[in-house]
Amino acid sequence: MSEYQAFRVELVDKVAHVVINRPDKINAMNAAFWTEIIEIFRWVDETDEIRAVVLSGAGRHFSSGIDLSLLAQVGTQLGKDVGRNAQTLRRKILELQASFKAVDQCRKPVLAAIHGYCLGGAIDLVSACDMRYCAEDAQFAIKEIDIGMAADVGTLQRLPRIIGDGMLRELAFTGRTVGAAEAREIGLVNQVFSDFDVLLAGVMDIARVIAAKSPVAVRGTKEMIRYMRDHRVDDGLEYVATWNAAMLQSADLRVAMAAHMSKQNPEFAD
Amino acid sequence: MSEYQAFRVELVDKVAHVVINRPDKINAMNAAFWTEIIEIFRWVDETDEIRAVVLSGAGRHFSSGIDLSLLAQVGTQLGKDVGRNAQTLRRKILELQASFKAVDQCRKPVLAAIHGYCLGGAIDLVSACDMRYCAEDAQFAIKEIDIGMAADVGTLQRLPRIIGDGMLRELAFTGRTVGAAEAREIGLVNQVFSDFDVLLAGVMDIARVIAAKSPVAVRGTKEMIRYMRDHRVDDGLEYVATWNAAMLQSADLRVAMAAHMSKQNPEFAD
Amino acid sequence: MSEYQAFRVELVDKVAHVVINRPDKINAMNAAFWTEIIEIFRWVDETDEIRAVVLSGAGRHFSSGIDLSLLAQVGTQLGKDVGRNAQTLRRKILELQASFKAVDQCRKPVLAAIHGYCLGGAIDLVSACDMRYCAEDAQFAIKEIDIGMAADVGTLQRLPRIIGDGMLRELAFTGRTVGAAEAREIGLVNQVFSDFDVLLAGVMDIARVIAAKSPVAVRGTKEMIRYMRDHRVDDGLEYVATWNAAMLQSADLRVAMAAHMSKQNPEFAD
Amino acid sequence: MSEYQAFRVELVDKVAHVVINRPDKINAMNAAFWTEIIEIFRWVDETDEIRAVVLSGAGRHFSSGIDLSLLAQVGTQLGKDVGRNAQTLRRKILELQASFKAVDQCRKPVLAAIHGYCLGGAIDLVSACDMRYCAEDAQFAIKEIDIGMAADVGTLQRLPRIIGDGMLRELAFTGRTVGAAEAREIGLVNQVFSDFDVLLAGVMDIARVIAAKSPVAVRGTKEMIRYMRDHRVDDGLEYVATWNAAMLQSADLRVAMAAHMSKQNPEFAD
Amino acid sequence: MSEYQAFRVELVDKVAHVVINRPDKINAMNAAFWTEIIEIFRWVDETDEIRAVVLSGAGRHFSSGIDLSLLAQVGTQLGKDVGRNAQTLRRKILELQASFKAVDQCRKPVLAAIHGYCLGGAIDLVSACDMRYCAEDAQFAIKEIDIGMAADVGTLQRLPRIIGDGMLRELAFTGRTVGAAEAREIGLVNQVFSDFDVLLAGVMDIARVIAAKSPVAVRGTKEMIRYMRDHRVDDGLEYVATWNAAMLQSADLRVAMAAHMSKQNPEFAD
Amino acid sequence: MSEYQAFRVELVDKVAHVVINRPDKINAMNAAFWTEIIEIFRWVDETDEIRAVVLSGAGRHFSSGIDLSLLAQVGTQLGKDVGRNAQTLRRKILELQASFKAVDQCRKPVLAAIHGYCLGGAIDLVSACDMRYCAEDAQFAIKEIDIGMAADVGTLQRLPRIIGDGMLRELAFTGRTVGAAEAREIGLVNQVFSDFDVLLAGVMDIARVIAAKSPVAVRGTKEMIRYMRDHRVDDGLEYVATWNAAMLQSADLRVAMAAHMSKQNPEFAD
Repeated sequence: MSEYQAFRVELVDKVAHVVINRPDKINAMNAAFWTEIIEIFRWVDETDEIRAVVLSGAGRHFSSGIDLSLLAQVGTQLGKDVGRNAQTLRRKILELQASFKAVDQCRKPVLAAIHGYCLGGAIDLVSACDMRYCAEDAQFAIKEIDIGMAADVGTLQRLPRIIGDGMLRELAFTGRTVGAAEAREIGLVNQVFSDFDVLLAGVMDIARVIAAKSPVAVRGTKEMIRYMRDHRVDDGLEYVATWNAAMLQSADLRVAMAAHMSKQNPEFAD
Repeated sequence: MSEYQAFRVELVDKVAHVVINRPDKINAMNAAFWTEIIEIFRWVDETDEIRAVVLSGAGRHFSSGIDLSLLAQVGTQLGKDVGRNAQTLRRKILELQASFKAVDQCRKPVLAAIHGYCLGGAIDLVSACDMRYCAEDAQFAIKEIDIGMAADVGTLQRLPRIIGDGMLRELAFTGRTVGAAEAREIGLVNQVFSDFDVLLAGVMDIARVIAAKSPVAVRGTKEMIRYMRDHRVDDGLEYVATWNAAMLQSADLRVAMAAHMSKQNPEFAD
Repeated sequence: MSEYQAFRVELVDKVAHVVINRPDKINAMNAAFWTEIIEIFRWVDETDEIRAVVLSGAGRHFSSGIDLSLLAQVGTQLGKDVGRNAQTLRRKILELQASFKAVDQCRKPVLAAIHGYCLGGAIDLVSACDMRYCAEDAQFAIKEIDIGMAADVGTLQRLPRIIGDGMLRELAFTGRTVGAAEAREIGLVNQVFSDFDVLLAGVMDIARVIAAKSPVAVRGTKEMIRYMRDHRVDDGLEYVATWNAAMLQSADLRVAMAAHMSKQNPEFAD
Repeated sequence: MSEYQAFRVELVDKVAHVVINRPDKINAMNAAFWTEIIEIFRWVDETDEIRAVVLSGAGRHFSSGIDLSLLAQVGTQLGKDVGRNAQTLRRKILELQASFKAVDQCRKPVLAAIHGYCLGGAIDLVSACDMRYCAEDAQFAIKEIDIGMAADVGTLQRLPRIIGDGMLRELAFTGRTVGAAEAREIGLVNQVFSDFDVLLAGVMDIARVIAAKSPVAVRGTKEMIRYMRDHRVDDGLEYVATWNAAMLQSADLRVAMAAHMSKQNPEFAD
Repeated sequence: MSEYQAFRVELVDKVAHVVINRPDKINAMNAAFWTEIIEIFRWVDETDEIRAVVLSGAGRHFSSGIDLSLLAQVGTQLGKDVGRNAQTLRRKILELQASFKAVDQCRKPVLAAIHGYCLGGAIDLVSACDMRYCAEDAQFAIKEIDIGMAADVGTLQRLPRIIGDGMLRELAFTGRTVGAAEAREIGLVNQVFSDFDVLLAGVMDIARVIAAKSPVAVRGTKEMIRYMRDHRVDDGLEYVATWNAAMLQSADLRVAMAAHMSKQNPEFAD
Repeated sequence: MSEYQAFRVELVDKVAHVVINRPDKINAMNAAFWTEIIEIFRWVDETDEIRAVVLSGAGRHFSSGIDLSLLAQVGTQLGKDVGRNAQTLRRKILELQASFKAVDQCRKPVLAAIHGYCLGGAIDLVSACDMRYCAEDAQFAIKEIDIGMAADVGTLQRLPRIIGDGMLRELAFTGRTVGAAEAREIGLVNQVFSDFDVLLAGVMDIARVIAAKSPVAVRGTKEMIRYMRDHRVDDGLEYVATWNAAMLQSADLRVAMAAHMSKQNPEFAD
């Protein structure tokens, strides 16, 4: 594990704990954040030992979103020609999106543990995770509307598959703050924990449960759910048949069956 | 603002209030309704001053749906040849659909404020709005099943993205009535207000909040959410990057940032 | 009605009641189950008299999912060549999927009445039904993860359209058990009944309500909702216009209208 | 038939002949052109007597494309804010596209008869027609590249379905001129005629052949081909089954069959 | 191999030769034809020994298309209610389509050898084959337009992927006859042979070449091309990666490589 | 420009000439090839001065495809578990595909100049280019079928959009060799040149023509054509309207117009 400027990373019991680590800046997403998150999730993806990921924020908040000084800096790269500026901006946005695509496309499940502020870009980030859990003090807001722009790194693209359409529009148009209870009610988070410590312990428990399952089965399951977000039911059925044509020849089924018969916990190879 | 037979329209604080105005007919949707709604939403779309729309019904109900005499009249236009009748009916249905497409594709957010009956075609209509709010006396029912037909002006097409699949099927197959509390629970409305006056005041407040945001940001946000209803996540990311390539060059970001820094309310050009 | 090994089938009041009938095996899905279900739903589809279907389990549980001996038997059909084994497995999976496609594509609404265990393959099955209702003792779990595989006969393909994405992932990755109350909260079932008898009576009532509607309208409605699961809103609008171009020429509209005017119950031809 | 500034329109033998009529301007597409073409094709669509359309240019050329003064005028409508300019331009482009969509979506077959110049916007136009035929003196060029822009009213969207991908890219990147023989070879036109008079006579003959067929069959055929440009084979099969469910009940089949048996020419109602 | 009424079937050198065998009826497609073709292609699909299929017609023609008496018979099944008739017709069309889907989805390549008439339904049939070859006397025509209907068993759905859009529309709207040379020029057939005997010998040669390749490779190749007809390039790349993840573990690669090194002909297991 | 092991790269007149440079190995694609091509095309993409790319092979052939020793080496990375091997292989294939995606997604047009052998992986490569040109001695063959596998780095995915479906299937199933004349006839190449020197001069000329056009217009044109390969016509129209909303505000239009008026060659900024 390398050293990171914007993150702290641990690997315990086959679970990688990725902590956004700029607590004095409310974990605002600076330049280092956007590049390091790609490296971290590439490492997660390629390290067979890692079977699940927990993502949280250091200090009193999850994250206040993109660092405004980063936005300002993009502005300074623009010239006089609107067309060429547009090409520069388009590439920059695609580049930022790539950082959260690394989370979305990670082959291991990613669980967000959210407390305090989860604003703007932080919503884009947790929308790219598999599941979201929060503490009672969590506050969610789609803040992009208040800096005069449509959210462009994932919130408007991924959240419609997670929460209801009508409420999504209200939150995106008004930027109003949502608390923990409402977040659970609208499906934004799966469960609310009393405070940060209980939250982190609870989410780590769920991650460990997942880490004990067959990694072949977990990856297949994640790939299928990811696929269904954008494909038809008949295509999904054909895809899983093609996928399992190979995977059902894995030893993991025998290991799982044997454990099931003998009422013991199975041990799966990484 | 023109005079309308089936509507009453006001423009207050950059919010257009569109009222279905045939209270003695429970706001049944007659021929004038279907053509005037297109004109009204074209005006909304083209009038820069308008930034949000509230849609409600005059009298004791939102609307009882399509005027049955209009349906009967369509029948009189049919001849003997089943094939040519089918072509006539198909065009007529597409024509009616166009009226609610005008609502759906309006570039400004449309908020439905619903009280009393919201039946049949009225469900098709509110499904085409951005958000739905209701009074405690609201009653929703997909009534088309009871006149022997599959709903064909939007309910079966847009509602599956708004409420859960299982409940949608029950309501569509049985035509049973849903009250305000259940409507909220299943995501059909965002919030329930005690009575019509409170409802209208509450919805106008939300509309005014939206009207105070950057219109460039609001339109981009609406376009992105509309797009995601029918497109893949990766296409959506590419689309917003292309869109924002131009929009991030707008002055609204600077205005919003400056207001944010100085803790003042921003003023955006129409 | 033929005799079946894995099912018992009745036809009452235009409602077919299909019962999984291996109570001593917790209604595990054996070879007979997978072929007979296709025959049964072909019969349902082709018998005009049948207008709705109720699906339930005999004994104390709905079903414990696929019979593990069936899985084991598939293993014995494999040879040495991984590529040819993959082709064999792929065809076998597609064959099993076809059994639940018969449920999904049935032109009459299918209502699942669930009590006790509803595990693994049983979730795949009820995901292919139109609506789901359960008794208070119902227990749901996506058990495939615990036998080392990604679910491949429909759960991961159809459930994302029924329950929220975040909760689906938790259930699919962990295999944890969900009770009746939570099932209702996340939209997996529409309603919870106190026990099996009340459940069955309640679901039969809903089925009878549907059976009394115009069959032309019910089939059109089901086809449109099925279509929207995988298509765009604009395609759906065009499709229903084409569909209704023929169906609005049916006598059922006149029958329904006349009954509506005379406040009597309409009688529709099969 | 109304009078038009940019067109001349005739109706002979159930074939509408639409002539771009600004020969002294090489039939450049001015403001009148873009609005009148919508009116003309709405009339074509709604007039049952019309069964096919021939589109040609008056004078020595088909058309030199968009009138550059129109482009210049759009420029004058722009203000200082890049974001608001972008919204203005986007709407303007969509508006121009709507003019050629009227051709594309016309329910009757449209045959382009091309001689002399067919440049820039004229390629966009003929790409929206069903078939293209030309005289030996025809010259085609995707001229947009030479005014510094990507073609945005249909060439890049519809031509890839008509000519091969590799050649399309060469023509779009270089703007080079293609003569009649090459146009035929790459599938841009169906047939080359010696000169304009022979061309027009030949295309009118083909149009009359089409006009003598069952209009129900011709419209169905056009709708199916249009649909397949953008849909899957399985969706297309389902769509034509739904469409023909009504159309096969038309009298036209009996008329056609009877004529077939008696070796006579059938007469179909409009 | 069973006995068939409408076909004659042989298996030579791992190539199945399927002959439409009603020469005195110009191989018109009667009721037996539509059901037997499904049985035959199921047998082809399930018989490992068969690696390619050649489809031809007995007597002087390939086929004149659907037997008109079959069409007439469908008419007699219709009743008075337009809606119920539409449902009957829709199911009947889907049933006929299923016969040619059996050809399209067959896992082994299907080569059509066409001489004499290839009219109406026969075009639908050869559009569902992998490749088409013809004798110089071949005559092709999309005859459905002349019996007053849009072709509904595959021509309008599959042919647009095979021949150019512009020419397809001309042929579909006019029903005109295309000879062998033009058929080759527009891509309808791959090659023209002098007469039927030369044609059959030539096509059998190509089929034998295919039958000598690795069946794992041939099936994968066919599946990928079929998939690309309806899917995006990025989806296709992901699908082939998933497919080959299993298939590259087959022994066929080693067999093929070894043969390549030793300059000998490889022998692949069925 | 860096030094490469498998390539030689030059930049002349704003055209990058990329040469596969392993002539003694018939330009077989070894490990260095697959990684360096990504670096080269990233450099092409990011270097504003480059406006077009020509891709050719050093020595007597374009390329014989993937280096078989590379394939053999992948085999050595596999272990005993079929499921884990499948995951390894799937990732490896995706990795190889990424190399040609870098060509496909390059924002500048890429012109392939092909002489001698163009076999197996080389067809995958040229399918990812914008246009293909060849010398008379060129020989094309989809060789993957002869090493017992379905082509998986692009041929089966991209070629169906370039050449006709029927001929593609013949070439993919049989692996037969196609010469220059047939390659042109089926649309695989745009033009045939007498020998390698004339070919290279001719292709460089076309590249220079493109390099002299507005780079804003060329990139927009390429993006639109790439988009249409996988999207609907209506989506394409909306996308180009959004794209040009920014790009039409570029100075390039004024530069192009002014040059057009003054009959001079325009000079565009990079």
